[in-house]
Amino acid sequence: MSSTVGQVIRCRAAVAWEAGKPLVIEQVEVAPPQAMEVRLKILYTALCHTDVYFWEAKGQTPVFPRIFGHEAGGIVESVGEGVTELSPGDHVLPVFTGECGECRHCNSEESNMCDLLRINTDRGVMIGDGKSRFTIKGKPIYHFVGTSTFSEYTVVHVGCVAKINPQAPLDKVCVLSCGVSTGLGAALNVAKPKPGSVVAVFGLGTVGLAAAEGARLSGASRIIGVDLNPSRFELAKKFGVTEFLNPKDHDKPIQEAIAAITDGGVDRSIECTGNISAMISAFECVHDGWGVAVLVGVPNKDDAFKTHPMNVLNERTLKGTFFGNYKPRSDIPAVVEKYMKKELELEKFITHEVSFSEINKAFEYMLAGESLRCIIRMD
Amino acid sequence: MSSTVGQVIRCRAAVAWEAGKPLVIEQVEVAPPQAMEVRLKILYTALCHTDVYFWEAKGQTPVFPRIFGHEAGGIVESVGEGVTELSPGDHVLPVFTGECGECRHCNSEESNMCDLLRINTDRGVMIGDGKSRFTIKGKPIYHFVGTSTFSEYTVVHVGCVAKINPQAPLDKVCVLSCGVSTGLGAALNVAKPKPGSVVAVFGLGTVGLAAAEGARLSGASRIIGVDLNPSRFELAKKFGVTEFLNPKDHDKPIQEAIAAITDGGVDRSIECTGNISAMISAFECVHDGWGVAVLVGVPNKDDAFKTHPMNVLNERTLKGTFFGNYKPRSDIPAVVEKYMKKELELEKFITHEVSFSEINKAFEYMLAGESLRCIIRMD
Ligand SMILES: NC(=O)c1ccc[n+]([C@@H]2O[C@H](COP(=O)([O-])OP(=O)(O)OC[C@H]3O[C@@H](n4cnc5c(N)ncnc54)[C@H](O)[C@@H]3O)[C@@H](O)[C@H]2O)c1
Ligand SMILES: NC(=O)c1ccc[n+]([C@@H]2O[C@H](COP(=O)([O-])OP(=O)(O)OC[C@H]3O[C@@H](n4cnc5c(N)ncnc54)[C@H](O)[C@@H]3O)[C@@H](O)[C@H]2O)c1
Ligand SMILES: [Zn+2]
Ligand SMILES: [Zn+2]
Ligand SMILES: [Zn+2]
Ligand SMILES: [Zn+2]
Repeated sequence: MSSTVGQVIRCRAAVAWEAGKPLVIEQVEVAPPQAMEVRLKILYTALCHTDVYFWEAKGQTPVFPRIFGHEAGGIVESVGEGVTELSPGDHVLPVFTGECGECRHCNSEESNMCDLLRINTDRGVMIGDGKSRFTIKGKPIYHFVGTSTFSEYTVVHVGCVAKINPQAPLDKVCVLSCGVSTGLGAALNVAKPKPGSVVAVFGLGTVGLAAAEGARLSGASRIIGVDLNPSRFELAKKFGVTEFLNPKDHDKPIQEAIAAITDGGVDRSIECTGNISAMISAFECVHDGWGVAVLVGVPNKDDAFKTHPMNVLNERTLKGTFFGNYKPRSDIPAVVEKYMKKELELEKFITHEVSFSEINKAFEYMLAGESLRCIIRMD
Repeated sequence: MSSTVGQVIRCRAAVAWEAGKPLVIEQVEVAPPQAMEVRLKILYTALCHTDVYFWEAKGQTPVFPRIFGHEAGGIVESVGEGVTELSPGDHVLPVFTGECGECRHCNSEESNMCDLLRINTDRGVMIGDGKSRFTIKGKPIYHFVGTSTFSEYTVVHVGCVAKINPQAPLDKVCVLSCGVSTGLGAALNVAKPKPGSVVAVFGLGTVGLAAAEGARLSGASRIIGVDLNPSRFELAKKFGVTEFLNPKDHDKPIQEAIAAITDGGVDRSIECTGNISAMISAFECVHDGWGVAVLVGVPNKDDAFKTHPMNVLNERTLKGTFFGNYKPRSDIPAVVEKYMKKELELEKFITHEVSFSEINKAFEYMLAGESLRCIIRMD
């Protein structure tokens, strides 16, 4: 048993002291896990757009100083009271949304929005005692979505930890902690295109490209990628995208351009931008009678989704999903197995890699629209 | 073979000469059926709200003089060229939306919105030759939704005719031609509540009460009826409605009142009002994670469906349906059998009965909100 068990661990963490300012690598104290918590040693973490949004804190509640990070792979260092499913040494992926296993959502086949552990971006403390496990010289540093993986050690509720195959390379499967699973699940679990379907994907970032990958795995015959950034188009071909549309190249609404090339609309559409007009287009571009649109992108606080009700009545379906409808503990280990069996390629999502001390570079790549996923090595 | 085959038939029809003016029983000429058409002797017809909307022609394209009517039961008098599925003497229900059997919609398991024969409320002529089959002294009288059942004889496209069990009493099963099937199918085919579900039904007219009946048949444990007209509440109990809410009795939006009594929302909601604010409430009152809202009511031309996109993202589903997703020719005969096997009661939908010469009374009962279905006897 590790000598750190029950002890405060001193280690490095990247602290965001203020909105939009570069992170600073600091020496932090990480308290031992309390009841139903585990302390993880993070080996690899990646940057997701959601970290950037809350770091910029535009139109979001600012919670600072804070340790961001929620896509990661690590190893259990020690476990708190009552934890029976995990032991020191287990390989795990922490997840920003949890699974208590007991609430109505956890018991529902359809939902993964656990009453106890669903994402809460405003909370900066552990749910057990309302306190932070991070301090710098005794002063608390806030958590982010219960994961705070931009730290060599972090404390996470046991319900937010997926135990995975110890053979799986953590520097690859760490991207299944958020973005890739979200897009993949939006296609496989929610949109469910039938073989031969025509699918539109709005937004060709990591989430959208994972959705395209899911559509390809489902046997879609055409995958139409829609993005404002033309540089995404070349890249997207690797993910099965067969055609590209840039709304800027069209005078009419993009849903009309899509209807024109698809005999009235696509069979499925998956929106992965967070932009409200893309959400509306994604709904209105599906075929009447059977079309299904799935929203994934996170909107702004005062956006309004607006459409003529006849668009609904004409037998279209609109759905939303959160983490691709995967239940983190129950379902993510099997997604890791898909990678192990080579049914799913993760390497193509990883465009950059930096060491922990260079973490701010990962932010620069994402803000410049250059990266999909940038892996941050903790060693 | 009847002596009328191939001949013009002179008979009585209730003609709407002008928007909103009482119908006038006139002597009309009904031409023989052309290719892919059948001529029907109507025995019973019923009044549906859609007849009333287009007769009032408020915000609708006025098409007059016109013969309304689309809920009916009749017998095939003669068939046109190319009709092989129907013969004189067959008992049938004409339906306002058709099934060509060949288009993408007819070949889809999900859609019933036939490309060729889907409802068109602006068209007053037959699709074959663009002409009317009704005349008065040679002057054409327009059709309504391809059925025009307020006439002793009418001509209908073969794709809009369901051949049913000849044992079925036409004065009862005629209500399956539109409203009852629409509501029933919205529940059984689209909302699909699981046994034990909590279901909200907005609008307790014929369509809403048929939806409640469908929810009851599906094993719903609670059926919450929502209507502005408190007189509907007593009646609704016969259809399985267990609780009642009148939006007028609440200061807060009705979706909040529903969430308060259902631990966060209903499992399914079915909107059968045509009112846009009821449509939005019906969507927002379903539980996050698994709730499904189904829109049935026909909105006004310039209504906008507006909601915060987070309501979608939180794993709610919004769907629309048209004629309860039933394909008229393929599916309606089996709904008639449900009645024959006493799995479905139709008598409780029939609140009034009048003779053909009293047809304007049926309009009065509906406008006063007194009737569900008023059967009009043609004899
Ligand atoms: N629901 C969830 O569980 C979940 C999880 C992770 C991420 N997300 C959300 O998914 C979205 C995508 O995440 P990402 O990491 O792939 O982001 P990203 O920034 O890498 O990609 C977004 C892409 O959308 C494009 N885009 C923006 N506006 C557009 C428009 N109007 N039309 C077409 N394209 C447009 C951008 O050019 C970009 O290529 C974000 O909103 C993120 O917050 C949701
Ligand atoms: N989609 C289809 O295929 C199809 C077929 C038939 C009818 N319809 C539509 O279904 C709707 C219902 O038809 P019906 O024949 O039952 O009509 P109806 O007039 O008998 O019943 C409608 C009920 O809704 C109630 N209502 C109106 N506004 C409301 C509100 N804001 N909140 C709560 N209740 C409200 C009314 O008081 C009434 O009891 C209509 O819009 C009709 O056009 C659709
Ligand atoms: Zn739970
Ligand atoms: Zn993320
Ligand atoms: Zn068809
Ligand atoms: Zn009707």
